[in-house]
Formats: sequence, structure tokens, C-alpha cells
Amino acid sequence: MPIPTFSTLELKLENHTASINLNRPEKANAMNDAMWQELRQAFVWADRTPGVRVVVLSGNGDNFCAGIDLSLLMSVQAAVKDECLGRQNEKLHALILDLQDCLTALERCRKPVLAAIHGACVGGGLDLVAAADMRYCTEDAFFQIKEIDMGMVADVGSLQRLPKLIGDGRLRELAYTGRRMMGEEAERIGLANNVYANRDSMIMDVLEIAATIVAKSPLAIRGSKEIINYSRDHSVADSLRYVAAWNSGMLVSKDLEAAAMATLTKTTPHFKD
Amino acid sequence: MPIPTFSTLELKLENHTASINLNRPEKANAMNDAMWQELRQAFVWADRTPGVRVVVLSGNGDNFCAGIDLSLLMSVQAAVKDECLGRQNEKLHALILDLQDCLTALERCRKPVLAAIHGACVGGGLDLVAAADMRYCTEDAFFQIKEIDMGMVADVGSLQRLPKLIGDGRLRELAYTGRRMMGEEAERIGLANNVYANRDSMIMDVLEIAATIVAKSPLAIRGSKEIINYSRDHSVADSLRYVAAWNSGMLVSKDLEAAAMATLTKTTPHFKD
Amino acid sequence: MPIPTFSTLELKLENHTASINLNRPEKANAMNDAMWQELRQAFVWADRTPGVRVVVLSGNGDNFCAGIDLSLLMSVQAAVKDECLGRQNEKLHALILDLQDCLTALERCRKPVLAAIHGACVGGGLDLVAAADMRYCTEDAFFQIKEIDMGMVADVGSLQRLPKLIGDGRLRELAYTGRRMMGEEAERIGLANNVYANRDSMIMDVLEIAATIVAKSPLAIRGSKEIINYSRDHSVADSLRYVAAWNSGMLVSKDLEAAAMATLTKTTPHFKD
Amino acid sequence: MPIPTFSTLELKLENHTASINLNRPEKANAMNDAMWQELRQAFVWADRTPGVRVVVLSGNGDNFCAGIDLSLLMSVQAAVKDECLGRQNEKLHALILDLQDCLTALERCRKPVLAAIHGACVGGGLDLVAAADMRYCTEDAFFQIKEIDMGMVADVGSLQRLPKLIGDGRLRELAYTGRRMMGEEAERIGLANNVYANRDSMIMDVLEIAATIVAKSPLAIRGSKEIINYSRDHSVADSLRYVAAWNSGMLVSKDLEAAAMATLTKTTPHFKD
Amino acid sequence: MPIPTFSTLELKLENHTASINLNRPEKANAMNDAMWQELRQAFVWADRTPGVRVVVLSGNGDNFCAGIDLSLLMSVQAAVKDECLGRQNEKLHALILDLQDCLTALERCRKPVLAAIHGACVGGGLDLVAAADMRYCTEDAFFQIKEIDMGMVADVGSLQRLPKLIGDGRLRELAYTGRRMMGEEAERIGLANNVYANRDSMIMDVLEIAATIVAKSPLAIRGSKEIINYSRDHSVADSLRYVAAWNSGMLVSKDLEAAAMATLTKTTPHFKD
Amino acid sequence: MPIPTFSTLELKLENHTASINLNRPEKANAMNDAMWQELRQAFVWADRTPGVRVVVLSGNGDNFCAGIDLSLLMSVQAAVKDECLGRQNEKLHALILDLQDCLTALERCRKPVLAAIHGACVGGGLDLVAAADMRYCTEDAFFQIKEIDMGMVADVGSLQRLPKLIGDGRLRELAYTGRRMMGEEAERIGLANNVYANRDSMIMDVLEIAATIVAKSPLAIRGSKEIINYSRDHSVADSLRYVAAWNSGMLVSKDLEAAAMATLTKTTPHFKD
Repeated sequence: MPIPTFSTLELKLENHTASINLNRPEKANAMNDAMWQELRQAFVWADRTPGVRVVVLSGNGDNFCAGIDLSLLMSVQAAVKDECLGRQNEKLHALILDLQDCLTALERCRKPVLAAIHGACVGGGLDLVAAADMRYCTEDAFFQIKEIDMGMVADVGSLQRLPKLIGDGRLRELAYTGRRMMGEEAERIGLANNVYANRDSMIMDVLEIAATIVAKSPLAIRGSKEIINYSRDHSVADSLRYVAAWNSGMLVSKDLEAAAMATLTKTTPHFKD
Repeated sequence: MPIPTFSTLELKLENHTASINLNRPEKANAMNDAMWQELRQAFVWADRTPGVRVVVLSGNGDNFCAGIDLSLLMSVQAAVKDECLGRQNEKLHALILDLQDCLTALERCRKPVLAAIHGACVGGGLDLVAAADMRYCTEDAFFQIKEIDMGMVADVGSLQRLPKLIGDGRLRELAYTGRRMMGEEAERIGLANNVYANRDSMIMDVLEIAATIVAKSPLAIRGSKEIINYSRDHSVADSLRYVAAWNSGMLVSKDLEAAAMATLTKTTPHFKD
Repeated sequence: MPIPTFSTLELKLENHTASINLNRPEKANAMNDAMWQELRQAFVWADRTPGVRVVVLSGNGDNFCAGIDLSLLMSVQAAVKDECLGRQNEKLHALILDLQDCLTALERCRKPVLAAIHGACVGGGLDLVAAADMRYCTEDAFFQIKEIDMGMVADVGSLQRLPKLIGDGRLRELAYTGRRMMGEEAERIGLANNVYANRDSMIMDVLEIAATIVAKSPLAIRGSKEIINYSRDHSVADSLRYVAAWNSGMLVSKDLEAAAMATLTKTTPHFKD
Repeated sequence: MPIPTFSTLELKLENHTASINLNRPEKANAMNDAMWQELRQAFVWADRTPGVRVVVLSGNGDNFCAGIDLSLLMSVQAAVKDECLGRQNEKLHALILDLQDCLTALERCRKPVLAAIHGACVGGGLDLVAAADMRYCTEDAFFQIKEIDMGMVADVGSLQRLPKLIGDGRLRELAYTGRRMMGEEAERIGLANNVYANRDSMIMDVLEIAATIVAKSPLAIRGSKEIINYSRDHSVADSLRYVAAWNSGMLVSKDLEAAAMATLTKTTPHFKD
Repeated sequence: MPIPTFSTLELKLENHTASINLNRPEKANAMNDAMWQELRQAFVWADRTPGVRVVVLSGNGDNFCAGIDLSLLMSVQAAVKDECLGRQNEKLHALILDLQDCLTALERCRKPVLAAIHGACVGGGLDLVAAADMRYCTEDAFFQIKEIDMGMVADVGSLQRLPKLIGDGRLRELAYTGRRMMGEEAERIGLANNVYANRDSMIMDVLEIAATIVAKSPLAIRGSKEIINYSRDHSVADSLRYVAAWNSGMLVSKDLEAAAMATLTKTTPHFKD
Repeated sequence: MPIPTFSTLELKLENHTASINLNRPEKANAMNDAMWQELRQAFVWADRTPGVRVVVLSGNGDNFCAGIDLSLLMSVQAAVKDECLGRQNEKLHALILDLQDCLTALERCRKPVLAAIHGACVGGGLDLVAAADMRYCTEDAFFQIKEIDMGMVADVGSLQRLPKLIGDGRLRELAYTGRRMMGEEAERIGLANNVYANRDSMIMDVLEIAATIVAKSPLAIRGSKEIINYSRDHSVADSLRYVAAWNSGMLVSKDLEAAAMATLTKTTPHFKD
């Protein structure tokens, strides 16, 4: 697969690391219809392209993402308009499911997704990074469950995924007040894995973390993501049972061998994609 | 509905904010039978009264709450006494369910409940605030799973709800040792959303947070609480499916319109209850 | 039951506190086959011995535990060898389940398990302490999901139990990068309950915490562990229902009586095992 | 508690058996607003009245129940009318939950509920008996998921509870086609426990079954219902764990003793309520 | 969308009823790679085409379906071949997920799927119809969990979906013995909704059932399928909560109105797609 | 492993079929303490012995099993006696868990268990066969949830496992009335897979079914049981996900190869244990 080109995203692939940049800087990367669809396509591409071992998601311009484009939100009502109220709501239902699915594409992508966040990360932008594996941010990054200020219930991931990252009590305050949370606090409570002085130092470090992941067994990385996804949503007993089934087929691999050999010879192992 | 009067609680309703104060200050607000029942009634009232958009729960006197009144605990055995051991335990079962239900009333109340805590918050008092949406406390507030010192397993909420707030490992230490945890630590680990120098500054800030919530779309606030309650107990996939069904009926509202208009005109939106 | 003797563990029982020490110091307490099996036996013993009210788990020598013994890992392939690939993987499946079960023995043990960790706590060592109730560590302790460096998916507990302790986002970074996390960070994010300057001060304090637990009602401690285990894996509603059934049989006890009497007389209660 | 009187129900209490008869025969017992509310009240009464050990639910006149009263259904839209579509749907949501709760009262009632059905049992009538413990019917009884003919999705129990009685495939045909199913087929597929030639022979036999239940230990009957309710909705492992907790408090009773003694002396045991 | 054409399926759309016929009669409709993929495409088409209100699935020639094409099964090993055993199994994993997804397309299709079965319905053919809403068959139809005779565990639906149709005990006998079950038995135990003397009478009646469904509110039919799918996999309490959210948005519709009007005027209601 | 000998069971191993016979015919095979323990040991043996591919469980003498031995039941109270009510109930809890575990051993045994039942199968006997894979019975066999007549809630499996076999409504009648259900009815409702004129014809046919299972791939049989056990307790989506993980490691086997070859050559495949 060649690297696809998109109207709202910028893609790069270097050293097994795919960089996916939100690319509507003049709109603070507000998510219009095209961006939702292209995000899904980009992560399907990252998932299926063997050479991609990790993804770094960031935003071009001064902000990570201003959330759903207001014009898209305002066009929703027209888009689902129907003389029958039930059918109108059924169309709205389909539309919400579709938007959710665009973001869940990050979770379905078998390779880790690292979000690097600076400036605004609000509304749909926060829903988006909630579906990433890890989040890194600058000190001036700020996070907001902006939906409450639009008079609506957030419905594409923040209320579902954030409690597992920051706990139930902190999530509720953010959800009800819509207040801005700055980068340092985000790091302190577990939303971000690390906080940086500025975008450049952040990107440099995140690319290094990505490089660390690239150096691991790709098979084990993909398996770990699958197992962690499963464990988040199941009991410990069920999760142990699942990983036992999983590893009975995946444990014995060339990578296990290569890693063992490298340990014995104190060399660096090399793994296939 | 007029504001009800209670023997153990003090109620106020100002600026859409209901204040519910535990009011047995001479007993450090120990929870006697009347208080358990009145708490449920008060939160049913807050839920059903359209003008109430948020609830602030605090304690009169020097402490938030000393937990279950010892006389109530000691009367339990007499209350369930039966010559048949099975029936005795069946009555005890019904009594535990009823006490649990008095506290779950906070969760069922569709409006956010903010607990403002100073001094002692122990035993049943901790079970109580665990069922609130957010917790704020003073530096001299202290939290204790006091039940272990009474020779019993805590059974009205702390062991069930705290792990989602502070994590499994921290909860266990508190549960097994019954040690006091002060306000600052509570904030650091996610039990409290913020910590304050004293009761006055806390109440002032909590009322401001309440006012922030009052200014949001009440419909969206109620919906957000429902969705967060659901998400706490279900997988991400199930939770996304639920909010899609929910919002297909609740998204398109006068509040969405008012909020959009306010954004365009850079004014403050006004919402009905 | 007399205190059993083991080839890889050192056991002591003093003041109702069982000390279980990993005892292959010359191998950094790497977990060979004997150690896996003996860990299970030791915790079955601790569970069944009435005089044991709490367990402290630590490591002899310079490190807590270097993880699975490499020779054991490398013998796995030979151990499950079969000309039929399906049967080979079936044997591997049984072996993984067995190793998981050795560690889940800590969870099944009805008495709290306190892990005291210094130096390396990596790979299987981290899986091991993840199954403990609480974790305490020294500043120089370091934690690593070492499995990723062996080219494999961790399959005996870390990926399943750590998210409930440190949140989903932090777990993922550790799982994908295999980076070392030092004691202070472990405490800050909730993996460890406390961090100490050195092993001696840690052990002294952990034994004191153990003594605190020993002084509580053993019946209530065992019940609390059962209820917390259950709550971790079930919804709040289910968990409340379960503890109501539990306490209808276990609440009324000599310990409740003794604790109440001690409160009234301001004395220290004494409880049977 | 005295036997309450209702406008839409007829109550009797004889030989520990409460008879609750739908009593709008001139309307084929169509469920108007009063009947929904009174059903809940009647089953709360049956639950709380110690002398009631079993409930028989039947219909006066020529039919068991014609379902929701059309006038109630048609008044719904007016009742929830609101200029804001979101609030309108929120009110409708509350109304559906309330109707569901009226029927779930049968399930919450700790005593077995036996529905005796003749003639029409359609729409809400089928939802109603789906919440009973057992169903008995005449040959001329007929069952219909009438909601599909009203242009709506059944939302008060049939689609949720029937699959556990008759299997997923049979439920779907009834739900999509709204076809009439006669008594014999109902018995054959497990919806009804038995089928009778006419109402009189049915009532006589159902009262005998009720008498059989009355003669059992009331404590064990109530416990069995609780355990079966739980088991329907949980895994076998969870259900075994729950009943173990339950019986640890409820097994040892005067009834166990009385039953054992009766077995030894070959007499009939007598149990308290 | 025009009616698509397929190499292994024959499609028709008449009277809102889509007929999808397996069309490799010379191979007893054995499922080759093309058929798996085309089945998914056909049901996506049926889902998205407004004019399709119901689907009838049957087989051309003498049999419904002989299951997975042996050549496909035998090519699997070659297709996933990899020098690394772990990667080989990972590819196999992806392939199984893909085949499962082809059949789950029947479940995801929001319109009811009626399978009309004659002759052989074995292996993958049984997995296929297990994902349909209802099954109808001839007397000479026979069902077999053929996978056990191929030396493998059935992995695309039979073991997962059949227990909900025929109960756990009957499913196990079929799964372990691979025995043939004839049409009459299938009907008796709930696998088939009805059994017919021959293919013609079956098709005629199934088309009539389809016509009955076509005459209902399409909105309510789609909603009912969604709700039944959900209820199969969740507790009664969760399922009631879900349908309440669903119907708060979907209940008030033109179809509800049309149905009510038709009832009053004793006419036949007409619904939009 | 040699065939173990037991005091209450008779074991045989012929043609890969283990016969386990309850062997206290003079007591109608009432389950005393030894029998509970030996049942667990026997099924552990069957699970671990490679040569055992299927188990047939039946009873010597005139009845299958009269249930728990009354003397055991009556000794329970003495066995758990403790001056502390809480500890007494805790011991009872441990005892119930242990008895449950003795029967769950049938489910954990990876080989199918076929119960062949004649005469009485009541109380604990019914709990026992509920944990088998399939049940076959004679016309004069009768089933009873006898526990209700002992004044207790059945707690070792019937209330948990029977609903999955016979549906919720039929289970409730049996549980509340304790009535006898004869063999033909048992077959009709799905408890028994088949019913026979007498014990001899039953045993002959069950051994033939066993022989059919013996002739299948033992690897695929063991896998099928694991997958069916899992599916009973999980959603369809989870179950599909689990079997995909399972088969990615177990599908490609010598048995798959042998079966394919046998199909092509129209011979009978031979499989290793």
C-alpha cells in the first residue's frame, strides 16, 4: 500500500513510525466531515501496512484540535431532517454510530497510537485522543469536554474512555463544568503520560518513545495491545483466560527466539514486521 | 414541590442550587435512622424538583459526618432478632439493602451532587460521599473506612465505589488498616477534586463550581450524569452503544440551538430547567 | 499445620504475620519452576493456617525478583514439543494456565498480602506483586514489564491487574516500552502505597502496617478482601447486592460485639483468629 | 397491613395465597394508567405481607388482558409534549421507565407469582405475564406481541424476558409478525407451564400448585426466587458464588430443622411465614 | 443502489422482500472464498437499501448448503504459511475474524433475515443460518455440526449462537457427535420455526411470513431487531434500560400515528420504508 | 496414571470410555462425604488421563442417585459449629464452595461427560447431572429439586445450570414445587437428550454415542467443550472473539490433516489421544 493522501491529514512514514498530522491549521484543526472519515481511513491504512509499527498523532499549526467543526454540528439537523420524528432520530443514531466508529479506528489499529498534543485539545479533539494508547502534551496544552458548552452530552468517547484514565470523580468535574485543564494537571492525574516545555521538545521525545517501541517485537506489541484492550473491559479472571488462549498460539515465535538469542549474546535483536 | 423540612437535615434552594446540610452538629452528624431515611427523601426531592440543577452536600458544625450512629448499629441486632437464624439473617439482609438504597439515592438523583467535606468523614460518612459525583474537602478533613474498627465489612458503598476513584491498591490499604487519610492526600489520589484551607473558602468555591454547572444546559447535565453512571459499570463498546441510543433522542434540543446561537453571537445562553 | 519448608522460599510466622521471602538471592530471586509451585503452596498454607492473619512478601538479597528464570522460559518450548502443532499449543495453554494459577493464589488467599519491594521487580516479579493486595517499595526499586523485551506478550497478570492500579494510559506505556519505573513514580501513580529510603526502613514500616491489620477483626479482614476482590470485577449494583448477601450471614459476630464493647470502654478489643 | 382495595384490581387472600385479578372485564382488562400503578402497589403489598406466600394473577371476564389501554397510549404524546424536543423525549424516557418498573414489581416481589391466563393475553398483557414466575393457560388463550401492530417496539419486558423462556428464534417470529400463538403451542415451547381445557379447571389446578408452594418453607421459597432471578442474568460461576454467600447466612434455619424432623418422623412439617 | 450481481449468489427484490439464494447448486452451495465475501456484501446491501424490509435466504439446487468448500479449508494452511509460527497463527487469527464477520453481517443487517432450508445444511451452512433471525425447513432438511468431522472446533457461530436457540444440552450432543438432525426434530427443539413437506410449500409460506413483516412499520421492525440482538447478550435490567433509551427517541413516529388511525378506522395502515 | 479405586464409585476404562458408576446401591447412591470428594478425584483423573476421551456416569442398583446423604446434611450444623455466629457462617460458606467445586469438576474435565440416569435423580443427584454435558434417561427416571422439601435453597448447581437447559419458567416450577418430573417430560423439555425403555437399552445406546465421540479428534472435542463452556456464560460477540483466539493456536493440527485425508480417501481417520 502506498501512503495515501488526504485533504485534512498529513501523513509520513519514517523508521516504521507513521506520523498522522491533523492538517487544517487555519481552522485550529477543527474536525469537519472529511477529517472524521479520513481519520478512519488513515488508521485502517496504519493497521494494514506491515511497515507501520507505531503511529504518532499530532496537529499542525498552533493547536492540536478545536473539536468538531461547528458547521458540521449545525448541518446535522438538516442532514437527518425527516417528516417522521422516529426516522429522523434513527438517522441521527446512524450518524452518531458512524462518528464513534471513526475514532474507535484508533483502538482497532493493532499498532500503538501516541498522541502528541499542544494548544487546544477540546471537544471532539479530546474524544479523539481518548482513543489513543498514550497521550503526551505540552505545558500550554489544554483539555476541555467542550460538548457541555454546546448544550449536548458528549457521545463519541470522552465519557466512556476517560474514567479508565483519570478516575470517575475527576472525569465528572470536567464533564459538568467544561473547565480547561492544563498540561501539567493532565499529566498529574494520568491523562497524559508526560508533559513538555514546548511542541518541539515534545515531538522529539515522543518520536524517541516511538523508536523504542519500533525496536520491540512487532508481534508482541500487536498482541499486547489486543490483550490490554480486552482487559480494560473484562474481569481479571476473564482476561487471564483470554490471554492464555491468545498466547498458546502466539508465544512461540521467531521473535521469542531472537530476543532470547540477543539476551545471551548481549546484542540487539532484529525483528520482522 | 415546596422545600421539605427534615429533623436531621437542613435544606436550602438558591440560584438553582440545593444545599443539603447534615444537621446533627452536636453528634458530629452521626447518621441515625432518621438521617438515612431523610437523605433518600431529600435526594428524591432534588431529583424531582425542576428548579434544582445541582446539589451541594455538607455538614453543619465541626465535622462533616462521624458515620453511622453507634446506637443505630447496636440496635440492629435487636431489630432483626428472630428465633429462626435464617429469618433473622433475612431481616438483616433487607435492612442492609435499605441502607444501601438510601445512599444510592445520590446516584439516582439526575442532578450532580457535590460533597463539601471538613473535619471527620468516616465510616458511613465516607460511604455517603462515595455516592456523590464530586468531593471537595478542607486540609483538616480526614477520611476513614471506620467499619473495620467496628469489626465489620463495610457494606454500603465504600468498597464498591472507591476503587473507581482511587484505584484498587490504595483502597485496600484504607480498608484493612482503617487509617486516617488527610485532605491533601485525598486530593492527590483522586478522592477529592480539590482541597482548601478552611471550610469557608471551600464552600465559597464549591458554590461557584455549582454556579458554573447551573449555567449549563440542564438537559445535557442530566444526560451526562446518566451516561457517566452507565459507563462506570460497562465496557467501552457497550457504553458507546448506549450513548448513541440516548443521544438519538436527546441531542436535538432547544438547548443545542441556544448554545449554538450564543456561540455565534458571543452572548451567554439561557436554558430552561 | 506446621510451617512448611521450601527450596526457593523462606517462611516465618511471628505475631500472626507470615513472612514469605523469595530466597534465590544469588539469582536475583529469578522464578524457576520450583518457585512458581512453591509460591502457590505457600499461599495455600497462609490461607488455611488460622494463626496467619496477614502476609508480607519480600525478597532476600539485593533484589526483589528478576522475573521468570530464563532457563525455565527456554525449556518451555522443549517441554511442550509435540509433532502435532495443535497438541503442542494445547500443552502450552495448560502450562500458562498453571503459571497464572500460581500467582492467583495470592488473590485467593483470604488474608491480605503486602509486597515489600526493593531493587529489581521485573517481568514475572511484577506479575507477582500485581496479585498482592498492596505494594510498598524502596526508592531504588524499579519496575519493568520485561516480557516485551523477551519478544512476548505478558500473560500472567500484569496486563490484567495493573490497569486497575495505575490506569489504562500509564499501563500501556510500560507495556509497550518496557521502560524502568523507579519507586517514587510507582508511589505517585498508585502502584506502590508508599516509598522508603531503604529496605530496612521499608520492612520495619510494612511490619507495622501488618501489625495494624493483625489487630483488626480477622473475620472482617477476610470478608473485606473477598468483597474488594468481587467489586474489582463487577458493577457497583452487583457489588452492593453481593455484599448484602455476604453480610447478612457474617455481620453479626463476636468481633462486632467485642469492637462495640471496646469502643464503649475505650479499651483495645481482642479477636480470635 | 390490611388488604388494600383498588379500582382496577380485585384482591383476595386465602390460605396464604393472594389472588390478584385484573378487574376491568368490560374493557377486556385493558391496562389504563390506574392499573399500571395499582399493579405495582399490589405486588409491593404481596411482598411485604408476611402471610402471603404465593400470588395467583388472573383476569376477570372473558380475557386475561387486552394490553395497554389505547386511550393511555394515545395520551402519552400529549402528556410529554414540550416545545423542546430533547425535554419531550426525556419525559417519555421517564414514563417508559415508570411503566417498566410497574411490571418489574412482579419480579421484585419475593414470593412466586403464578399467572393464570385465558382468552387474550396481548401487548402489555404479555409483558406483564413475562415478569411472572410461571404461566398457566387455557387452550383458547392466545398470546401476541401486539406492539408491532401499533407501529412501535415493545419496551416493557416481552423482548427482554421471553427469550429466556422460549428461545431466541421463536421470540423473533412473534415479535416481527405479531401473530397469535394459542395455548397449546405456548405450553409446547415453554411459555406456559401447562395448558387446560377451560378457565375453571385451570384456576383449580393453579390454586393447587399454589397450595403446594404454600406448604414449603417460605424462607426457602423466597431465597430460591432471589437465586433464580440472579442466575438468569449472570454466569454460572458468578451464580454459584452468589448462592454460596446467600446460603452461608440463610441455610441454617428452623425450617431446615423442621423439614429434617418431618422426614425422620414421616410427618408434615409446618413452617412460619 | 441497484441490485448488485454476484458470482455465487442470486438476488431478487420483490414486494420489499429481498431473496438471496446461494447459487452454486452443482457444488451443493459449498461456501468458497467468493461466497463468504459476497454474503457480507449482499447483507450490507440489504441493510442499506431502504426498499428492502425483509430478507429470505435460501439455496438453489438440491441442498441449502454443504458448508465451507473443502478446497478453501485446505488452502488456509498455505495462505497463512509463515516461517514464524507466531505470525502464521496471527494471520490465521485475522482470517477467522474475517469469516466470522461475513456471517455476523446477517445480524448487523437491520432487517429480519428468514432462512428457508432444504436438504443439507451442514458445517458453515449451519453457522450461517444460526446468524439469521428465523429458520424454516423442509422435512428432509438435515443439520450437522460438520466441523467435528473435519477435526476442528467450529469457530464461526454455531457453538456461540445455537445454545440460545436449542439449549445447552442439545447443542453439546450435536457438537460432539456431528450427528444429522432432521427437519422435524429441528422444529421440535426450536432451531426451526416451522417444518414443511417440501421446498415449494416452504418457500410459499416463508414468503407469506415475509409479506406479513413487510406490512408492519419498518421503523418498528428495525428497532425490534436491534433490541432483541441486545437482549440476547445482556441482563434483563440492562436490556430494559437500553430499550427505554431507544424508545425515548424512536417511539413517537408517523408509524405510531398511522397504526393508531388504522385501528380506529379499521383500515390497513401504510408505512414508509 | 493407573485407574484409581474408590469406596463409593466404580471405575472402568474401555475403548477410551471411562465409566464412572455411583456405587452405594443399598443407599440409592446417596451422596455421603466420601462420594462428593471421590467424584472430584475421579473427574480430575478422567481429565488428566490421555486415554480417556469420554466419560459415562451412571448409578449402580435401582436408582441413579437419591441426593445428598441425609446424615451428611444433618452433620453440617455440627461441623461448622462455632460460638461466633459470623465464623460459623464463614465455615459453612467454605463448605458450600467445596461441595460446589466437587460437581464443577465435571465441567472442568475437558472430556465430554454423559450421564445415564434411571430411577431417582433427585436433590444433589440432579445438581450432579446438571454439570454433565449431556443427560440420557429411562422412562421411569424421575427428577426432583428435592432441596425445597428439606427447607433449603438448592446451592450446588441446579438453579444455576438448569435454566440454560430447560428455560427459566420450567425451572421455577420444579424449584418451587419440588414435583417429580418423569423421563419423557425431561426429554421433551431439553433436560435429557433421549429417553429409553429401560436401563439396559439406555446404557447400550449411550455407550454407542460415547463410541461416536471417541472416534472424533480428541483435540477438537476438548476444544469444543472449552468453547461451549465459555459461550454459555458470555455474549455472542465475546464468544466469537474467544474462539478466534483459541483456534488461531489449535486449528492447524495433525487431526485436521488426518480428517481431510480421510475425506479424500473415503477412509476412517485415526487420531492420537
